[in-house]
Amino acid sequence: MTLPTEQYSCIHRVCVCVQSCHATKPGMLNVHLVPHTHDDVGWLKTVDQYYYGDRNDIQHAGVQYILDSVVDQLLKNQDRRFIYVEMAFFYRWWKSQSSSVQQTVKQLVNEGRLEFVNGGWCMSDEAATHYSAVIDQMTIGLRFLNETFGAFGRPRVTWHIDPFGHAREHASMFAQMGFDGFFFGRLDYQDRARRMRNKEQELLWRASDSLTPPMADLFTGILPNGYNPPEGFCWDQLCSDPPIRDDPDLEDYNVDDVVGCFLVIANSQSTVYKTNHIIMTMGSDFQYENANLWYKNLDKLIHYVNARQANGNKVNVLYSTPSCYLQELHRANLTWPLKTDDFFPYADDAHDFWTGYFTSRPALKRYERISNSNLYLVVQLPGKGPFGEGESQTMKKAMAVAQHHDAVSGTEKQHVANDYARKLANGWQHCRVLQASQYIVLPNRIQTFLHRFLRIYCENLNVSVCPLTESSKKFSVNVYNPLARPVTWPVRLPVNGTAYSVSDASGKAVDCQVSMCASSFAVNELVFQVQAPPLGYTTYTVALIQDGPPPAPAQQRAPPVIQNKFLQVTFDPETGLISIELPNDVLLKRPRYNASAGNNVESRQPSGAYIFRPNSSTPFIISRTAKTEIIKTSVVQEVRQWFAPWVSQVVRLYADSRALELEWTVGPVPIDDSLGKEVITRLDTSIKTSEYFYTDSNGREVLQRKKDFWPTWNLKQSEPIAGNYYPINSRAYIKDDVDQLTVVTDRSQGGGSIQNGSLEIMLHHRLLHYDFRGVGEPLNEISGIFPDGLVVRGRLLLTLDPLPTAADMHRPLAEGMVLQPLLTFTAGDLKPNTQLEFSGLLAALPPAVHLLTLSQWDEDSVLLRLEHQYQSSESKVSSQAVTKLFSTLEVLGVAELNLSANQWKDEMKRFDWTPEKGTGHQCCVS
Amino acid sequence: MTLPTEQYSCIHRVCVCVQSCHATKPGMLNVHLVPHTHDDVGWLKTVDQYYYGDRNDIQHAGVQYILDSVVDQLLKNQDRRFIYVEMAFFYRWWKSQSSSVQQTVKQLVNEGRLEFVNGGWCMSDEAATHYSAVIDQMTIGLRFLNETFGAFGRPRVTWHIDPFGHAREHASMFAQMGFDGFFFGRLDYQDRARRMRNKEQELLWRASDSLTPPMADLFTGILPNGYNPPEGFCWDQLCSDPPIRDDPDLEDYNVDDVVGCFLVIANSQSTVYKTNHIIMTMGSDFQYENANLWYKNLDKLIHYVNARQANGNKVNVLYSTPSCYLQELHRANLTWPLKTDDFFPYADDAHDFWTGYFTSRPALKRYERISNSNLYLVVQLPGKGPFGEGESQTMKKAMAVAQHHDAVSGTEKQHVANDYARKLANGWQHCRVLQASQYIVLPNRIQTFLHRFLRIYCENLNVSVCPLTESSKKFSVNVYNPLARPVTWPVRLPVNGTAYSVSDASGKAVDCQVSMCASSFAVNELVFQVQAPPLGYTTYTVALIQDGPPPAPAQQRAPPVIQNKFLQVTFDPETGLISIELPNDVLLKRPRYNASAGNNVESRQPSGAYIFRPNSSTPFIISRTAKTEIIKTSVVQEVRQWFAPWVSQVVRLYADSRALELEWTVGPVPIDDSLGKEVITRLDTSIKTSEYFYTDSNGREVLQRKKDFWPTWNLKQSEPIAGNYYPINSRAYIKDDVDQLTVVTDRSQGGGSIQNGSLEIMLHHRLLHYDFRGVGEPLNEISGIFPDGLVVRGRLLLTLDPLPTAADMHRPLAEGMVLQPLLTFTAGDLKPNTQLEFSGLLAALPPAVHLLTLSQWDEDSVLLRLEHQYQSSESKVSSQAVTKLFSTLEVLGVAELNLSANQWKDEMKRFDWTPEKGTGHQCCVS
Repeated sequence: MTLPTEQYSCIHRVCVCVQSCHATKPGMLNVHLVPHTHDDVGWLKTVDQYYYGDRNDIQHAGVQYILDSVVDQLLKNQDRRFIYVEMAFFYRWWKSQSSSVQQTVKQLVNEGRLEFVNGGWCMSDEAATHYSAVIDQMTIGLRFLNETFGAFGRPRVTWHIDPFGHAREHASMFAQMGFDGFFFGRLDYQDRARRMRNKEQELLWRASDSLTPPMADLFTGILPNGYNPPEGFCWDQLCSDPPIRDDPDLEDYNVDDVVGCFLVIANSQSTVYKTNHIIMTMGSDFQYENANLWYKNLDKLIHYVNARQANGNKVNVLYSTPSCYLQELHRANLTWPLKTDDFFPYADDAHDFWTGYFTSRPALKRYERISNSNLYLVVQLPGKGPFGEGESQTMKKAMAVAQHHDAVSGTEKQHVANDYARKLANGWQHCRVLQASQYIVLPNRIQTFLHRFLRIYCENLNVSVCPLTESSKKFSVNVYNPLARPVTWPVRLPVNGTAYSVSDASGKAVDCQVSMCASSFAVNELVFQVQAPPLGYTTYTVALIQDGPPPAPAQQRAPPVIQNKFLQVTFDPETGLISIELPNDVLLKRPRYNASAGNNVESRQPSGAYIFRPNSSTPFIISRTAKTEIIKTSVVQEVRQWFAPWVSQVVRLYADSRALELEWTVGPVPIDDSLGKEVITRLDTSIKTSEYFYTDSNGREVLQRKKDFWPTWNLKQSEPIAGNYYPINSRAYIKDDVDQLTVVTDRSQGGGSIQNGSLEIMLHHRLLHYDFRGVGEPLNEISGIFPDGLVVRGRLLLTLDPLPTAADMHRPLAEGMVLQPLLTFTAGDLKPNTQLEFSGLLAALPPAVHLLTLSQWDEDSVLLRLEHQYQSSESKVSSQAVTKLFSTLEVLGVAELNLSANQWKDEMKRFDWTPEKGTGHQCCVS
Repeated sequence: MTLPTEQYSCIHRVCVCVQSCHATKPGMLNVHLVPHTHDDVGWLKTVDQYYYGDRNDIQHAGVQYILDSVVDQLLKNQDRRFIYVEMAFFYRWWKSQSSSVQQTVKQLVNEGRLEFVNGGWCMSDEAATHYSAVIDQMTIGLRFLNETFGAFGRPRVTWHIDPFGHAREHASMFAQMGFDGFFFGRLDYQDRARRMRNKEQELLWRASDSLTPPMADLFTGILPNGYNPPEGFCWDQLCSDPPIRDDPDLEDYNVDDVVGCFLVIANSQSTVYKTNHIIMTMGSDFQYENANLWYKNLDKLIHYVNARQANGNKVNVLYSTPSCYLQELHRANLTWPLKTDDFFPYADDAHDFWTGYFTSRPALKRYERISNSNLYLVVQLPGKGPFGEGESQTMKKAMAVAQHHDAVSGTEKQHVANDYARKLANGWQHCRVLQASQYIVLPNRIQTFLHRFLRIYCENLNVSVCPLTESSKKFSVNVYNPLARPVTWPVRLPVNGTAYSVSDASGKAVDCQVSMCASSFAVNELVFQVQAPPLGYTTYTVALIQDGPPPAPAQQRAPPVIQNKFLQVTFDPETGLISIELPNDVLLKRPRYNASAGNNVESRQPSGAYIFRPNSSTPFIISRTAKTEIIKTSVVQEVRQWFAPWVSQVVRLYADSRALELEWTVGPVPIDDSLGKEVITRLDTSIKTSEYFYTDSNGREVLQRKKDFWPTWNLKQSEPIAGNYYPINSRAYIKDDVDQLTVVTDRSQGGGSIQNGSLEIMLHHRLLHYDFRGVGEPLNEISGIFPDGLVVRGRLLLTLDPLPTAADMHRPLAEGMVLQPLLTFTAGDLKPNTQLEFSGLLAALPPAVHLLTLSQWDEDSVLLRLEHQYQSSESKVSSQAVTKLFSTLEVLGVAELNLSANQWKDEMKRFDWTPEKGTGHQCCVS
């Protein structure tokens, strides 16, 4: 392994820290100027347009030049400092540099003049990302830094200056990655005001109620001015603040004005922070393309302000970095307020809740999620197969880019969203060779047993398109299950025949059914359940029995009931509303909110890609009646419902499933009435929620929410709907002492519980106004194949359980939803002696243990991440500690790393921080 | 003297030239890429705002950063080249650099990687400047370069890429300054089209009909694209053209597109030039603030285009400079078309004649001209006097800045115009100590004879304000005459008494008169004629005889005639029109043109600071009647006429004068009718002009003009008035075989002869629309003391002479108008033994010899420029050759320099060029 030993780095790190941080003055107010650039990994331009400085007509920004310029300018004065964040850009730049430039940059890094913060591939979104993808994107960035710069390149600080709200799970991950501190810029305006008053802008975040402190404790600092410089002190080429004019021979000598103004700002800022150190972020979006402007004026500022010390002035200004600033805070040896909830939702004014992006671009959000699943699986395969040079790097980078806070968030321009999708598609393309090769990343001796034949992947299966299955009389289906436990999975294949036989790997016949396809793309659909072994595959063989006309509709008009051994679901034949046979009724409605056009009296804020602002707190019902069809087979029973030409759903109950599947299809959202629309689905139950509900944080731990309430301050609610929306990454639930209704989602969405007993999820929105947050376009998705507006389809899994066993249901359900099996196809007969089934494990891992990562690391080793996927005390059984190992792994040695795999676990030495007594709120899942 | 010897520089220069110019390829099309920035010495921002990058909200531009960045980038790749033009900026930058940066820059200059072109303090305007001020501004820039960089810093090429039309006198000066070539960007669109067709964009300009060729021959190149890069190839931060994206791993690889497009442009450009070398100006206004953007992409362009040579492509691209390009043209050893006229007026489209700026900001134009006179005088005084550290450098630089093509041209924003005036006022302030000291720059032994007493300068004498003369019962007037011949000058002093006695230096009484002040600021005006000796001063003593009420008006209502021994002028009592008693009548009218509001059918172009476009070819008469007063005294006879509340004039005839003075006052121009107005004065005569008329070029040689005619091509006239306007810097005349009417102006103005026998001059204009040439403001001058619009006053001297002696009249008349005596005052009695009169010359220089410069050069030497001020054959007597020397100069040695005093005359070796046979037009004064 190429990991540098921490001992080596530690020795040097300490030296470097001492040397690289400028001395501060104890009796003075020390102002840490932190030169930085915020380089979105795509937003108004694509990541590559940003890198090159292309399309400067859209936005002037060229990251290649930023890095060129900053390196040049750092060399001009060794006092200068700079921090850099996004490895997606730095990597592009680095690989095009000469070795002499690379050597120079290494020297700058070694001396602490160029410091990496965050160090992930991007600065991830916190509301719409899944934790596994965030860990991956952090890992590839941090590993790149390690490999390039050794221990000196390892960031000590995370830097989430722009994301629109902050997830507790992010803080937990960052703590486990070994970061000493976390800085961000955006938080609720009421929260900001209170924290300023109380000097609570720096705090200790206890980011998990399952991990033993301080494992998930993270020191958190809220930056004074977002991430911008103080007003009047922006000296970038993108700004127009007056430069320091210090030549008395020329006009408008302004040194005294500038210094005077700076001292006022610094002294004022010091009143809302605890120590005699304050930080100023000297930079902003894509700044420092011509770093000379900044540094030349900062040099002068430092010179002229500190010159006042000779006259007794007590302000000391210095070039600094977040880690140098953090070091001083740590040295202050104070106690800090403790926080245990999160920073959602984010509002920057009374009617400006950034909760629309939880759902924005639902198709992209789904494509990102399924890509995550695909990548999870692909990295289990080695880099080279017998069928070519397939590699997972392209997909890894595409996924890492997609985690950016204007990517999966859905807040980018349309052409940029298209580019993210294109990048993912390109990643899939590169992975396909791997998938076709079907190796598994396991010790070499075992690989040779695996079969080698070319398999076809049907990437349009989601819209029932697969030429192979549609045209073949005989074909085999290979089901690869990347999870460490067996899965059962419904397979739905487009076919043209009316009857098929399906047999499993042992030749045993499997129950299957052909029905008319619910979607409009294929003729018929062959449905059967497959069962795949843990970390392995199995093979099903399908043969046509009967060709000819489509089978007669098997639908039964009455009674409108579907049921299996676990559930009975009835439908109101008129309204289509569903009832589930349990103590509670689940009523499913599909109302919509109209988006605010921004012209009402309270505020001009319209709904947009970022902001959610319905023009009424009462949703409009799309239709009070539904057209319904019921199809019952031995494999699945389904009710197809059409509420409007643009809203339909299929309610499915598989024979052996405890969960009810709702497949929703929404779009094109009509806009003939010139009103944008936010479409929600709402589950009304008799569960006594007492205004509480629960949403997950990045797909991992679940947090308690309460309507019109923030645990840490006295909320004044000004948006009754939007202000109660939270991100749902994989699940949300409502419960009382007896029952719990959990909804597992197939992508990140926004939702809330506006009425007691009710849970609503926003599925899709189409908006006609721009919400004034920079993107400059309304979120009105139209494409070549959807000229009238995007049509989106998705799945919700509903499970209604007794409270004690609810987690035992939703944890595996969500694990299977997030990380799906991969289906590949071979036409005709398989070669003789083909191995039809294989498992990498002798036995499944226990339910509590999630195989988070299994990936080739280098020639000799694999990176393995095992995770306890239950929160403490959510399940009597599963929340317990467990141990288990792989069946086929010959373990020659194990070395434990931090979460981001860039530091040995036993060398991870983080700053210790003391919480204030009596602070913190145990608000979460108890 | 610090001048480097040319022998030294020659040897090195040749070496450097050979080394510093990249090799070209004979069999290929060589494309010379010339990276450059065009840095206006004030325009939308003041010169210091531009230098610092202040007020970037108005325009993004910061020259300090441009020079920082270019130096850095030149060091990155020794193939790169850059040229720099404006010493006003370079000097500011240079003096703030560390010695190590200075050393680096010297190295770059020595190696030809940084080349200075032009090298004056600014890129002067060619239409509104006086040649003496242009020589001064070039001299201070070129001398700075000489002193800083030695011979390597001496520019070989002038570079007037932006001025709006080109004066022949400029070309003549540049030739005499030793320049090898002249490049510019703007010329008439019809002329451009013709020259492209005929490959005549490179030519030999014979810029004087008096100097023996090739003394005033200048090779002139017209740049292909103004001064901008070809379309699609602007890689500055101010542009949005796509960068070269050459990483195949990233999106949108575009190397093939860019190279293909470049080859099309290069090959197309080569069809309109003569040689296998073409030049491309890679830069524009204030570009290269972040030079990395340009150079990084240019490096790639050169690399990828030249890489095509391996496949047989015949285009060779190289970094180059104008002098390297010129060297290749010279090597081509071709003949070039000869041109003897000039490039006025400039039109960039059929209705877009840049002839308004000839008159724009008439008050600034006058202030610049009188400042020139003041500076001319002040440099004759040494740098330090007994009354303090007065110096002329501030004034020299202020005047040099004022020569810029958006300064005296009047085409800058209002706040910038204010700044130019402020800079001049500041220059005056610094000069005042000198003036008060009254030394003369002559060998030390003589200085001690000069008197030393504190004198007061009345800077508001032009509006009849001088507290000293208004309040003193006795005072003396010192008249310093900077010219090399005696002058007679009318003195008009504001006083409160009604009778005074005036005596000259010898105590002799001088005829004087008190009359009511014509202007509104003072009570009475004391008028007398003074006579001052050459290059020296005399003193008049004034004593009050009678205090009390103002004298009774001495005006005589009839007959409306004023006359002296030379002239008789009669007035039409009704219309105010003037007749001069000579074979011809001179009729003075004062019509106005309305400015075009830009909404007529032919073009939307309105009149503005640059463009003149009246909405009618027939001017409106302001008034057909005039209110008239006549005042006759023994000193002066004057007729005061009011045509409207905002237009008046005083016609004056002094007792001994051959010239008639017209003092005009125009303003505030009324705009109640929402129409801008261009106010002209028109002289209608019976002179048979046959459509010819004559205007001077920068105050020196006079060129023949013909209505609706250009000597060098078949003009298609589309603007009958504006298209016939030419700059008048000091004089214009019309003539026939017998008579010549000459008008000498006190500032630069625009004018023309629209009708036979008529000459019109635009005095003032006030405009309500912006003319779309960048300045972004209408030319609507309003200030604190002129809240209703600027009031401007000026003088025209009319002289009507027999043709053979006309030049003998107008040459000294204009010389005296341009370079006026300076009046200073002392209250009470002078100290005993004060020397009341002094002349630096034993005898006056002959009329033909103009003392162009007399200025302290260094401790031991003076810079002396003597000029033959008559054009060849314009005067039988005065056009002859002459010799003469100073009376008091002890000439220890004389060394002759080029015109800009940065090279020994005998070492001035310029390229020789061969004109095409049969080209050139002898169109000028014959």
